[in-house]
Amino acid sequence: MLQFALFGAGRIGAIHAANLAASGRATLRHVVDVHAPSAAALAVRFSASVSDVSVALADPAVQAVLIASSTDTHAGLAVAAARAGKAIFCEKPIDLSLSRVSECLAAVAEAGVPMMVGFNRRFDPDFVVLHRRVGEGAIGAVEQVVITSRDPGPPPVDYIKVSGGLFRDMTIHDFDMARWMLGEEPVEVFAMGANLVDPVIGAAGDIDSAMVLLKTASGRMATINNSRRASYGYDQRVEVHGSGGRLIAGNRIASTVEQADATGVVTEKPLHFFLERYAAAYRIELAAFIDAVEAGAPMPVGAEDGQRALILADAAERSMREGRAVRLP
Amino acid sequence: MLQFALFGAGRIGAIHAANLAASGRATLRHVVDVHAPSAAALAVRFSASVSDVSVALADPAVQAVLIASSTDTHAGLAVAAARAGKAIFCEKPIDLSLSRVSECLAAVAEAGVPMMVGFNRRFDPDFVVLHRRVGEGAIGAVEQVVITSRDPGPPPVDYIKVSGGLFRDMTIHDFDMARWMLGEEPVEVFAMGANLVDPVIGAAGDIDSAMVLLKTASGRMATINNSRRASYGYDQRVEVHGSGGRLIAGNRIASTVEQADATGVVTEKPLHFFLERYAAAYRIELAAFIDAVEAGAPMPVGAEDGQRALILADAAERSMREGRAVRLP
Amino acid sequence: MLQFALFGAGRIGAIHAANLAASGRATLRHVVDVHAPSAAALAVRFSASVSDVSVALADPAVQAVLIASSTDTHAGLAVAAARAGKAIFCEKPIDLSLSRVSECLAAVAEAGVPMMVGFNRRFDPDFVVLHRRVGEGAIGAVEQVVITSRDPGPPPVDYIKVSGGLFRDMTIHDFDMARWMLGEEPVEVFAMGANLVDPVIGAAGDIDSAMVLLKTASGRMATINNSRRASYGYDQRVEVHGSGGRLIAGNRIASTVEQADATGVVTEKPLHFFLERYAAAYRIELAAFIDAVEAGAPMPVGAEDGQRALILADAAERSMREGRAVRLP
Amino acid sequence: MLQFALFGAGRIGAIHAANLAASGRATLRHVVDVHAPSAAALAVRFSASVSDVSVALADPAVQAVLIASSTDTHAGLAVAAARAGKAIFCEKPIDLSLSRVSECLAAVAEAGVPMMVGFNRRFDPDFVVLHRRVGEGAIGAVEQVVITSRDPGPPPVDYIKVSGGLFRDMTIHDFDMARWMLGEEPVEVFAMGANLVDPVIGAAGDIDSAMVLLKTASGRMATINNSRRASYGYDQRVEVHGSGGRLIAGNRIASTVEQADATGVVTEKPLHFFLERYAAAYRIELAAFIDAVEAGAPMPVGAEDGQRALILADAAERSMREGRAVRLP
Repeated sequence: MLQFALFGAGRIGAIHAANLAASGRATLRHVVDVHAPSAAALAVRFSASVSDVSVALADPAVQAVLIASSTDTHAGLAVAAARAGKAIFCEKPIDLSLSRVSECLAAVAEAGVPMMVGFNRRFDPDFVVLHRRVGEGAIGAVEQVVITSRDPGPPPVDYIKVSGGLFRDMTIHDFDMARWMLGEEPVEVFAMGANLVDPVIGAAGDIDSAMVLLKTASGRMATINNSRRASYGYDQRVEVHGSGGRLIAGNRIASTVEQADATGVVTEKPLHFFLERYAAAYRIELAAFIDAVEAGAPMPVGAEDGQRALILADAAERSMREGRAVRLP
Repeated sequence: MLQFALFGAGRIGAIHAANLAASGRATLRHVVDVHAPSAAALAVRFSASVSDVSVALADPAVQAVLIASSTDTHAGLAVAAARAGKAIFCEKPIDLSLSRVSECLAAVAEAGVPMMVGFNRRFDPDFVVLHRRVGEGAIGAVEQVVITSRDPGPPPVDYIKVSGGLFRDMTIHDFDMARWMLGEEPVEVFAMGANLVDPVIGAAGDIDSAMVLLKTASGRMATINNSRRASYGYDQRVEVHGSGGRLIAGNRIASTVEQADATGVVTEKPLHFFLERYAAAYRIELAAFIDAVEAGAPMPVGAEDGQRALILADAAERSMREGRAVRLP
Repeated sequence: MLQFALFGAGRIGAIHAANLAASGRATLRHVVDVHAPSAAALAVRFSASVSDVSVALADPAVQAVLIASSTDTHAGLAVAAARAGKAIFCEKPIDLSLSRVSECLAAVAEAGVPMMVGFNRRFDPDFVVLHRRVGEGAIGAVEQVVITSRDPGPPPVDYIKVSGGLFRDMTIHDFDMARWMLGEEPVEVFAMGANLVDPVIGAAGDIDSAMVLLKTASGRMATINNSRRASYGYDQRVEVHGSGGRLIAGNRIASTVEQADATGVVTEKPLHFFLERYAAAYRIELAAFIDAVEAGAPMPVGAEDGQRALILADAAERSMREGRAVRLP
Repeated sequence: MLQFALFGAGRIGAIHAANLAASGRATLRHVVDVHAPSAAALAVRFSASVSDVSVALADPAVQAVLIASSTDTHAGLAVAAARAGKAIFCEKPIDLSLSRVSECLAAVAEAGVPMMVGFNRRFDPDFVVLHRRVGEGAIGAVEQVVITSRDPGPPPVDYIKVSGGLFRDMTIHDFDMARWMLGEEPVEVFAMGANLVDPVIGAAGDIDSAMVLLKTASGRMATINNSRRASYGYDQRVEVHGSGGRLIAGNRIASTVEQADATGVVTEKPLHFFLERYAAAYRIELAAFIDAVEAGAPMPVGAEDGQRALILADAAERSMREGRAVRLP
């Protein structure tokens, strides 16, 4: 039973706490949150203590930390946990600033502790099957990747203001997906964005609609289309074209029921909310972290994956601003 | 926390025990099985005692029993549990003999305890959505029901010999589904059967392939097609035609991944095994039982539903033997 | 260029005349219809003469006749055409009376002319692919066939009164499909019917909803479900289960366009009208007739296929009336 | 009956000639081709004369010309036809050089004759339905367009050498589709390309794989993915996202037959060849031209549409070369 401290008792922290309890392989010892009632609620539900950061990290029984607090605290907590010798699971992004991410990674490396970044989509069963097939050569050499990633609706504008912008907050998942599916690092990034969904978002200095192109050294390409709003649900699809064929992973729906009547043949919309859509992914992600920590094996998604995705997000923003392709070293 | 005794520590008993534990709403106190190692394994896993029937039923803390033992013991255990005042969840079928089922129901009624029969498919999320839509009038008045129910492969012939035959063992689920979807009692049954899959089954006196027609008093009809073998997985579909449209509930697949290459466009086979296909159904079924016991509400699937399905199975067998429609009172 | 006389200038006659003209392989010389304006219209459109039966059959240039007149005239015209030495394409059914069909077939056989019956669905490209795959052994030995055959709406009650009833008028196509897909003759028929769609049909002595089971000597089975009304279009599907898999041929839709919005994911309804759904089938059917006549080859669907389907229709009606399976010799 | 002269008796010329004959609304008077046997074959088949350009254009009976010769002759023939007062249907592209296209358009405008460019996909029934729905507001305001356009296999390298490159030869159709679906002119173009399919294509100075982004003044965006090879057939899909939903038009398949067996559930590949996939589109396109000429109505796809698509192709090539977004006036 791996012993955990959880930082952040919000929506995503609660998900991880529940998955941790249900895994039968881990115990939650501490819940830390600046919002005391949230911490207390989770602590009661999972028989943990409400603690502050120093207490949680000083507890020698704690082997691993789960960082699900607000983004601006991620890097600091990771460094502190690293210095305390704890294995680290950190929600994305590590930080909105690449320099702070680099400092964090350096501290973690120095401490010699493992660190995983929460790119949950890599554990989605459909994308896992698709990626495994690509790896098995089912469609030959990868040539092009098409990623559709559209949220059901925009978050509150207050969130958007501190989110780091669409590319760092939302597209970052797609940059990671593209890297994973391409099997090579993108070396060229081009991005376009616009404010089409809600003028409030534009007034806050962000975009809500974007399209991105990526290219690797060998000429593989990816395109991403993003929107903060999809009236029909959470649209999450990946399409990979290879020399020998095409693989598509589609949306998950609540039921297979199909209704035919005078208006047409109607099936269900994609699952609406990311917690539904990726419920299995979150569960499997945490299990993969526990597996790797227990086995002393490499993290399935490392801290440098978080860094690489942020580099792409930064490049996309620069590309959009400057109207040119940004080349990466 | 509802306190349970479990009779039968085999495959299906283990499923129920796990769902019971995971529900967070029930405790397993006793595991009873003639095969001691199976009982011991489940008891250890779920912190229960290995007991015999009389001890389990004499325990005043036990509020409910879960009968998942071999079919020939169901009715006897149900009667004993009823006399001990326990709420009863009994796997289908209650018994292979209608007269014993009637005696069992009489004893249960006399004891005044609730009894639910394990027609798990009524709790399958897809069929639930379909049935709810029918009830909401989405397709008007029900007219015809088409049920496809094909196992991935036949059970061992030793099981078939004591199974009561295809209609009582396998089609019984479809009879229940037909009743549920038709919304009326069938009054006429016609059935055809054949031995096409494996001659060993024929040698054991059973069929492995069947087609059935049912008709209600108002003229609604259902057709069922059954086979003990489907190379492509467990084929479980329901189609309901009404005056205003059609509803179809299809198979569940392991992933949405679709591969296109020189051979065609390939999607996954239906989930192969009933425990995968109906994993959610078993979980929801048990929760519905706990809900009803706790609320003192009517059972969502009552003992008389088990009886009605068996009446249809008996009628189907007679129909096949006599080459005529069998009318029910 | 094969020279034709056409009997019947109604809806289906016009279809055949147009296909004949578009084939580039045949010429229409005579149009015969008791309704003079209909005959005249077609004759003008396709540069043919309006003639009466005797003139058309006496024309030595006419090599083939196309019988698309009202059902009660089919057998008489076929016999007359046979005696005149013409190749015969006759719309289904040959007649509503089996004895008249037998007499007709005897006369045709005596004359030694080829006769084809218009079971157009055998030429539907989807069903052709399915049937070819069955023949190639793609799913092993055929075991069960499920036929869904539902009209978009009932014909006028005046038509129903002279139609011979649902089994002879509508199901007859499905009996032929079942025979074709089973690859063996049914020897046992069971049918149920009801009046659910429109009481006017019941008042006219007919049913509008039916389910049928068929069984062959080796134990293969088929089930047919019929309705005179399907609000969502013309529902025409065939499903064949074999020892090694399953083949399904579905409906055709007007476009592939799929719309996702807040109400669901909506695709088009099946094509609504049999002339749209089977447009290609009618064209290919006529070409197959011309091919066979020109090559002196056996008819792709012979007169005896028309007879066998009628035998099944008669058996279905007797079965429904008597509540028992009807065995065929 | 509109009287036509056809320039170019190759594959696409033959398609147009056949559609023209089958339309029943036009006559082919002249066939012109430098390759005499091709011209002769078509002339015989459709009862036309083999002529040279001057004879064909001097024939006062000729009302319209159909330019389907090699690309380098399009503009010259169009100008000559314009001066002869003929209505012009010209295959895409008008020319590979924008300045020659402008000169051609000027000459046509001066002559006052109507000119249509052969963007056949605008007449594909699926894309027409999608576009009509967009126009009806079914998904609100258009925001993003995703175009998948992948050929089954590359053309001969000799063709590629004179094709003007992937963007002018292949993507030009997608540029037109994007303009049509966006409902606004793109003002910004970004493109990436690579040589992944066949090194021979790279050696000939062309790319065989590309991804493009387009953006309009109001912020609408489109992404195009192209490949010269798709092992599974001709992949032609359009997806339009709007403020109120999503529309997708998919591929056409040869049959609806679905096979399920131990390897999976297999449906047919997309139609392999553009002449199959767009057979209806070519037919409808020509009918639309005839309609417009006869009615004196504006061309459904005008010469300036050909020009605009070429401007986008040129911009894409410059963007790829220079690694920056190209802005259009």
